[in-house]
Amino acid sequence: MDRVEAYEPIILVGAGNLATRLGLRLAEKNIQVLQVYNRTPERASALASRIGAQPVADIRGIDPAGRLFILAVADQAVPELAAALTPLNAPERLFVHTSGSLPSTILAPAFSRYGVFYPLQTFTKNRTPDFDEIPVCVYAAAEADLRVLEALGQRMSRKIYRINDEERAAAHIAAVFANNFTNHLYGIAERLLAENGLPFDLIRPLILETALKVQSESPAPMQTGPARRNDRETIRRHLEALGRHPEWASLYRLITESIQHEDNRLH
Amino acid sequence: MDRVEAYEPIILVGAGNLATRLGLRLAEKNIQVLQVYNRTPERASALASRIGAQPVADIRGIDPAGRLFILAVADQAVPELAAALTPLNAPERLFVHTSGSLPSTILAPAFSRYGVFYPLQTFTKNRTPDFDEIPVCVYAAAEADLRVLEALGQRMSRKIYRINDEERAAAHIAAVFANNFTNHLYGIAERLLAENGLPFDLIRPLILETALKVQSESPAPMQTGPARRNDRETIRRHLEALGRHPEWASLYRLITESIQHEDNRLH
Repeated sequence: MDRVEAYEPIILVGAGNLATRLGLRLAEKNIQVLQVYNRTPERASALASRIGAQPVADIRGIDPAGRLFILAVADQAVPELAAALTPLNAPERLFVHTSGSLPSTILAPAFSRYGVFYPLQTFTKNRTPDFDEIPVCVYAAAEADLRVLEALGQRMSRKIYRINDEERAAAHIAAVFANNFTNHLYGIAERLLAENGLPFDLIRPLILETALKVQSESPAPMQTGPARRNDRETIRRHLEALGRHPEWASLYRLITESIQHEDNRLH
Repeated sequence: MDRVEAYEPIILVGAGNLATRLGLRLAEKNIQVLQVYNRTPERASALASRIGAQPVADIRGIDPAGRLFILAVADQAVPELAAALTPLNAPERLFVHTSGSLPSTILAPAFSRYGVFYPLQTFTKNRTPDFDEIPVCVYAAAEADLRVLEALGQRMSRKIYRINDEERAAAHIAAVFANNFTNHLYGIAERLLAENGLPFDLIRPLILETALKVQSESPAPMQTGPARRNDRETIRRHLEALGRHPEWASLYRLITESIQHEDNRLH
């Protein structure tokens, strides 16, 4: 077995939800984070102090001892930040972003060694998902770099996947459907209830059970409802009731058709 | 406090997933189910034997001692079954269906006392959701009957809601969005992953976390993703990648627009 190159010490770039979760997990696993960089000094300090790292708000203050640079920032900020960090480019340093949708090659103009370290989960301030269960997608063009990221990932989670740029782009679209779009449907449901004076609590258990079901099963065979059984009368009544919300009626119609097409495909 | 009329013994009509869950819960709570009716004798027997009831496959064999008749059958079967049960109509008997979408009045031609007992949850053969947490929506035109159903519901679950026909219709549409439509989005996500050789396990934790988040929060403020932050470049790339699936691309476009409208409404 080849020796895995060092990923310590780490320079964590960013101080938002994802940077915070990563920083806390690294600290928990005794992986050395030397510095937290954020251009707003207060934000850098807030996270750095929680994980025993030094805060840096000026790129020139970044310690040259850093071996792995994790750019845990918004997608739009990555190119500019990479450009700003280019002076630190050196054979002993590996630079990764944490984005689901950006290709790894967006880092190519700035660094000779680059990759992706993408935890496929949604992070919110007040919730701490079990990091052991978070799938971490790693990628680097060079096999040696990939092994570095894999070794780091394995210290943080039980679920590490080698996933290239094209695969990660597909996974990200899947995540948009399963997370962003699903959450929007929850929101429509809440408003439909509220308009009738009903609490969201009425369907919270249903939402949870729907998600729990597919933890062990495939979704398609689990499909139920008026669209699945082609219950035209119920669909007609639902569309009529949605009359005040033409946009939701369009959504209802389109998803119903999509369920029925899927059904024809399967049977 | 008025005396609550008897709801025992119960005649359970049906032997599918919902009838089974109800039967098992009633048995667990020592509420007497006298008979299980199903026109297929084997199905009646299979459920009856699990809950200490007698199986009946011929309506003429239904015991006149029955006080509460629970019609836990598919929506389409309710009118015909109600008609077949009309000879049992009497002042001492209450008849309820368990449907989210049928009005209570669908039972009016057949019975003088009727109502609804609707557990708002999805039931699958191999899963046993915690019945204590299942919201049970009860309704009856007569206050005395409503109290009977409420008393029964309270022995079965911690969450009983008095919900009239119009409210229940709205709750059912909300449930279609939050359960049926959501599950379909999970299915699309699974296929997108599969087409790229990726396992559904990659997004199972994300699905669960998305559902867990809204157990204590409202969905709209939790909204994230390319639509929410109006990330046109990512949206454009996603639509391009969905080119092979024009139907999913349409869905992607419509839900994205709906998220952005919702966002404009809130801000």
